[in-house]
Amino acid sequence: MTTTAPPTPSTAPAAVAPAAPTADAAVALRPVPSGEARITGGFWHERQDANRRQAIRTGYEKLETAGNLQNLRIAAGTATGEVRGPIFMDSDVYKWLEAAGWEYGREPDEEVLGWIREITDVVAAAQAEDGYLDSVQQVRGNGARYVDLPWSHEHYCAGHLFQAAVAIHRTTGETGLLDVAVKLADHLVATFGPGRTEEVDGHPVVEMGLVELYRETGNRAYLDLAQWFVDARGHGIIEQHGKEPTYFSDRVPVREATTVEGHSVRAVYLTAGAADVAAETGDAELLAALTRQWEGMTSTKTYVTGGIGARWDFEQFGDHYELGPDRAYAESCAAIGSVQWSWRMLLATGETRYADLVERTLYNAFLPGVSLAGTEYFYVNPLQMRAGAHTDEERSAAHGRRPWFDCACCPPNIMRTLSSLDAYLATTSGDGVQLHQFATGTVHADAAGGVELAVSTDYPWDGTVRVEVRGAGEGEWELALRVPGWAEGATATVAGEDVVATAGEYLRVRRTWAAGDVVELVLPMGVRVVEADPRVDAVRGAVAVERGPLVYCLEQPDLPADLVADDVRVRVAELRGARAEHRPDLLGGVSVLQLPVHRALGAASGPLYRPAADEAPEQAAPETVEVPAIPYYAWANREIGPMRVWLPRA
Amino acid sequence: MTTTAPPTPSTAPAAVAPAAPTADAAVALRPVPSGEARITGGFWHERQDANRRQAIRTGYEKLETAGNLQNLRIAAGTATGEVRGPIFMDSDVYKWLEAAGWEYGREPDEEVLGWIREITDVVAAAQAEDGYLDSVQQVRGNGARYVDLPWSHEHYCAGHLFQAAVAIHRTTGETGLLDVAVKLADHLVATFGPGRTEEVDGHPVVEMGLVELYRETGNRAYLDLAQWFVDARGHGIIEQHGKEPTYFSDRVPVREATTVEGHSVRAVYLTAGAADVAAETGDAELLAALTRQWEGMTSTKTYVTGGIGARWDFEQFGDHYELGPDRAYAESCAAIGSVQWSWRMLLATGETRYADLVERTLYNAFLPGVSLAGTEYFYVNPLQMRAGAHTDEERSAAHGRRPWFDCACCPPNIMRTLSSLDAYLATTSGDGVQLHQFATGTVHADAAGGVELAVSTDYPWDGTVRVEVRGAGEGEWELALRVPGWAEGATATVAGEDVVATAGEYLRVRRTWAAGDVVELVLPMGVRVVEADPRVDAVRGAVAVERGPLVYCLEQPDLPADLVADDVRVRVAELRGARAEHRPDLLGGVSVLQLPVHRALGAASGPLYRPAADEAPEQAAPETVEVPAIPYYAWANREIGPMRVWLPRA
Repeated sequence: MTTTAPPTPSTAPAAVAPAAPTADAAVALRPVPSGEARITGGFWHERQDANRRQAIRTGYEKLETAGNLQNLRIAAGTATGEVRGPIFMDSDVYKWLEAAGWEYGREPDEEVLGWIREITDVVAAAQAEDGYLDSVQQVRGNGARYVDLPWSHEHYCAGHLFQAAVAIHRTTGETGLLDVAVKLADHLVATFGPGRTEEVDGHPVVEMGLVELYRETGNRAYLDLAQWFVDARGHGIIEQHGKEPTYFSDRVPVREATTVEGHSVRAVYLTAGAADVAAETGDAELLAALTRQWEGMTSTKTYVTGGIGARWDFEQFGDHYELGPDRAYAESCAAIGSVQWSWRMLLATGETRYADLVERTLYNAFLPGVSLAGTEYFYVNPLQMRAGAHTDEERSAAHGRRPWFDCACCPPNIMRTLSSLDAYLATTSGDGVQLHQFATGTVHADAAGGVELAVSTDYPWDGTVRVEVRGAGEGEWELALRVPGWAEGATATVAGEDVVATAGEYLRVRRTWAAGDVVELVLPMGVRVVEADPRVDAVRGAVAVERGPLVYCLEQPDLPADLVADDVRVRVAELRGARAEHRPDLLGGVSVLQLPVHRALGAASGPLYRPAADEAPEQAAPETVEVPAIPYYAWANREIGPMRVWLPRA
Repeated sequence: MTTTAPPTPSTAPAAVAPAAPTADAAVALRPVPSGEARITGGFWHERQDANRRQAIRTGYEKLETAGNLQNLRIAAGTATGEVRGPIFMDSDVYKWLEAAGWEYGREPDEEVLGWIREITDVVAAAQAEDGYLDSVQQVRGNGARYVDLPWSHEHYCAGHLFQAAVAIHRTTGETGLLDVAVKLADHLVATFGPGRTEEVDGHPVVEMGLVELYRETGNRAYLDLAQWFVDARGHGIIEQHGKEPTYFSDRVPVREATTVEGHSVRAVYLTAGAADVAAETGDAELLAALTRQWEGMTSTKTYVTGGIGARWDFEQFGDHYELGPDRAYAESCAAIGSVQWSWRMLLATGETRYADLVERTLYNAFLPGVSLAGTEYFYVNPLQMRAGAHTDEERSAAHGRRPWFDCACCPPNIMRTLSSLDAYLATTSGDGVQLHQFATGTVHADAAGGVELAVSTDYPWDGTVRVEVRGAGEGEWELALRVPGWAEGATATVAGEDVVATAGEYLRVRRTWAAGDVVELVLPMGVRVVEADPRVDAVRGAVAVERGPLVYCLEQPDLPADLVADDVRVRVAELRGARAEHRPDLLGGVSVLQLPVHRALGAASGPLYRPAADEAPEQAAPETVEVPAIPYYAWANREIGPMRVWLPRA
C-alpha cells in the first residue's frame, strides 16, 4: 500500500479518555471516559485545580516566550527569524494542546477552547502541503526530511500531535487539529513502512499516537504503521546510522526483550505503544513480551517510588539493581511513560499489579515532579540529598524546581497527565465496574444499563473508601475495588455486611444493587517499613517508610538544627509504632509520620576508610528523637537541603 | 608588562624529573632526578618495560592514524583536508612527546629520539609566526583565537606542550621543542594577564606547564602568568561566557576553596599547578588552601582505590560521600592528576600522607587504567560490575579496555606517568635522603657529598624492603624510609639492629654510614579489612580487602560457576585469616588472597521491595567457600564480567 484513503472521523468521540480501545480490541477492561469518571474533590482534585488555574495558563504563555509557537510561525512563513530550542520543540506545543483538550473535557471553558483554536491555527499553517510537519526541521533543515531520524524526533513530534488531536476531538468534537494529524499521518503512511522508507525514529511515541488516531478515525493504515514501527525495532536500523542502539530501544526486537534498557522515557513510550498495538491486533505474543519486560523493570529497575531511570548519563535505565537513591534520575517524563504503559497493561489483563504500579508511580514518582503550587517542575527526582560542601545557591540551581526548562518535555507532560487523570479511576468490563484508583468523585459506567457510583474518601491520608451506588443499573452486576498489594489487613463491608478483602486482588461484589447501597473498603494506614532486595547495593542496611500509597522521606526543615538528615539512624521495630498526624498547615496539608529516630555516633570522626569491626559497629545513640517524615512528593517545596527516603538501620 | 625578554634556556637541565623546584623554591624535599633514581627490576619495572616496548611505539602510530599529526600538518599548510577529533587533539601529541622524553631519560634510544625529533618538526611547523599554536583551532577556527576559552582548550594544549618540552630538554638536552614552547609561552605572556586579556582556560594544566617552563628557562614571566591564572579563577570569568563555573574549577577562588568539586581532572590539574606556584613563590596561604582541599578530597571524595570522580555526567566529583562503586567514574587521568598534586604537596611539606596517597593511587587507581600487556586502556574505572541482563558484547563495549579512544587523553597520560615513575621513588633534603616508594632499583643522591643506595624488594607481593648503602657519602646523614599509614606493626633493622618503625611516619636513621650497611624495613603483609565512613551510603554494610599497598577484588573468572560475585557475603573475622598465595601463572603473576566467603541466601526470590525485618536478616549460608581475590588493578584482563571491590557482610 502506498497511499491511504482519506479517513472519515467519527462524529461522536469513541471515549473521552486516553487509550480508548476499539470494540474489537483484545482487552479485559475498558476505560470509563473522563468526564464520566470524575474526580470532584480531595487530594488529586486540588492538584488538578492548580494545574488548570496555574500550569496550563502559564504553559500557554511559555509556548510563546520559549519560542515554540514562533518556530511554527516561521515554518509557516508568517514570521521570520531563527527557530529556537531543541529539535523537538513542537512536541511541547502538542503536549500542551493535549493537556488543554483533556482539561476542556474535565470542564468546558471558552478561554481554553479559544487557546486551542488559536494554537491549532498556528500548527495547521506550518504544515507542508503534503502533510509533513516539523517546524524546527522545516526551517533549520532547509526542507530536508528524515535525514537523521535517530536524533531528529520527527516521528516523536508527530506522535504527540496525534495524541493531542485525539484528545481535543474526544473532548471538544472539533476536528481542526485532527485534520492536521490525519494529513501528517497519511504522509507517514505513504512514506514509511515495508517497501517504503524502512526507518524508525530514535524516540518512540508515534506508536501510541498512531494507534489512538486509528481508534479515532477507523483508518487501519495507522494501526498497521504503528505495528510496523514496533516490529522494525531491534533489527539494526539505528546502528546503520552509526549509533549505539541500546539508548534508542533498538538493540533487540520488542518481542525478544526480557527487560527494559537504554533511555528510560524512550523505553516505556515504546512499550506503551506496543501494548496499544497488541490490544488492537490481539497479539498475545507481543503482550507476553511486554509482560516479561514489565516484570523485568519492576523486579530489578524501579525505585521504591515507582520512578525509573538510574543514570544521569544519557537518562538511562542502569543495570539490574543499580538504584542509587542519591543520583536517581527518575525523570518525571519516565514516570508518566510508566503510568501509560501500566495502564495499557491493566486494560489488557485486568491484573491489579498494574494499577498498583500506577498508584505508586502517580503519588511518588510523578507528583514530586511538580511543586505544590503547580507551577514549578522537577526534571530529575533524586531520592536523597546530602548535606554538602556546595552552597545553597548551587544546590538549588542543581536541584530546585524550575518554571520551565530548555528541554521542556516534563512540564506539559505533567499537565496532560493531571488533566486526564480522571480516566485512570475506573474501568468497565461486560457487566462489571472496576475502581482502580481512590479519589472522591463520581463514576458513570454503561455496564448493566447504566451504573452511577459516588466515591468519597480522604485518601491518601485516610484509608476508608466509601462507594455509594447511586444508579443501580439493571440486574446483577459486579463492582470490583482494587485492594492494593500493600494493603495487608484491609477490611470491607457491603451494605453493612463484612466481606473479605485480599491485598493484591480485586474485592469483587456481584449482586443486584439498590440505589443507596454502600461498599466501604478500609485500607490499613499503619506505617510500613520496607527494605530492598539485597542486590540493591545502594540501599543495603537501610529501610524506607511508607503509609498508604505514599513513600515518605525525612527533609532537613523538619529536623532539629543539630541533626542532619544524613546522620539519622532507625530501628525497624520502633518505626512500626510511628504515629501519623495530619497537619493541614504543612505543605498544603499532609499527614506526617512522627518517626522515632536515633542519632548516628562517630560519623564525623575518623578517616574515610578504616579498619573494619568484626561486626557492623553500633553507630547510633540509644535514645530516640521524634521527627516528622513527610510524603516524598512534597519535598523541595521549602528550602532545598538534605533529604532521605532510605534511612540506615541503627 | 606587555612583552617579555627572550628567555635564556639553561644549558644544563635543572633536574631530570617532572616538577623540579628551583633552588629558591619553598619546598621541604627535592626530587632525585629520574635517571638518578632508577627502577631496575620488579613490579613497576615490568610495567615500564611494557610501556616502552608496546605502548609508546603504538602511541606513535596512533598519533598518525587518529589524525593528531595530520591536524598539525594541515595547520602548517603542508597537508590539506579537514582536521579530525576533539579540539584538544594536540595535547595527545604533547603527552606522547613527554612520555618519549622521560623514556629517553630512562634509557637513551635513538629510535625514540628520532621520533621525538620528527614530531617536534611537525609541531614546530604548525606554530604561527607570533607563537600561537593550536592546530584544530587554527584550521577549524579560521584563525580566530581564544574566542571560547572555557571549551577551546588552547591553554590546556599549551600546558601539555610545556611539560613535554621541559621533559625532552631535561632528558635529551635538545631544545627543539623547548624553542616552540618558549615562543608559545611568550605569546601567552604577551596576551594574557592583568591589563591584557583577562581570561582563563576551561581546563587547567597550563599552570603546571608554565611553572616548569620557568624552572627550565629562568623566565620569571612564566611563573607570574601561572600565578595569575591560578588567582584569576573563582572570580566569574567562566560565568561571563554563560557557563556554570563549578565544572571548570571557577566557582570559588583557589585560596578560598575548602574541597575539590566539578570536573575531577580539571580540579586536580589546577591544584597541582597551584602547588607549583606556591612552591616557587613561597606562598604559605596558597599552600594552606591546597592542604585544606587535599584533606577535603581525601576525607570525603576519594574511592578506596585512590580514584577520584564519582559522576559519569560531566566527569565530576560528586557530593561529599557520593562514592558509589558501581558507577565510579574514577577516570585514569584523574588518578594521574591526583598523583601529580600529592607529589607536589609531598615536596612542599615532606609529610608521608601525600606519599601514601601516591602509592594507593598508583597501584589501585592509575594502574587499573592499563592492561597487563600495556596496550589497552580504561578511561573509566568502576569498582563493581554486576551480573546484568546486558549481553557480554555490550558489557564489553561499555567497560572493556580499548587500544585508543576518540577522546584519547588517558593513553598517553598513562604512558608519560609510567615513563617518569622513577622520579617518585626518592627525594633529598639537606643532608637527608627519603625513600617514598618501594621498588627494586638504585638511588644516587647529592646529599652528603654523594649517596648511593641499592633497594631490593618483591614489593608489593612481599613486605620486606632492603636498602643497602653502596655509596656512604661523607659524615652523618639521614636516611628516611616512609612507613605507610596502613603498615601498623612494621618492623625494621639497621645494620642488624632493631629500630622502631611507626606507621604513617618516616623511619629516620641518622648516622655515619658505611658502604654495605643495610636497612631492612618489614611491612606487615596480612590481610586488612576496611570499611568506609558510615556516610558513604553506597558501601554501607560492606567491606574491602587490602594487602600491602593493594586493594583486592573478586572477579567472576575466579569464582565457582554457581556463585555470582554479586551474591558473595563475608564475615570480617574470617577474612582476616585469609591466606595469600603467589600465583606466578596468573595475570602476569599476582598474589591472590584465598578468601573464605559465604553464599547469599534468598537473594533471587521475593519482590524488589519487601517488608523489613526487625533486624537486618541473616542472608548467607553458614558454610564458607574459599575463593581467590585478585588485585583490583588486574581485573578485566580476562573476560569482562561481574567484579566487586566492596563485599557485603553476611
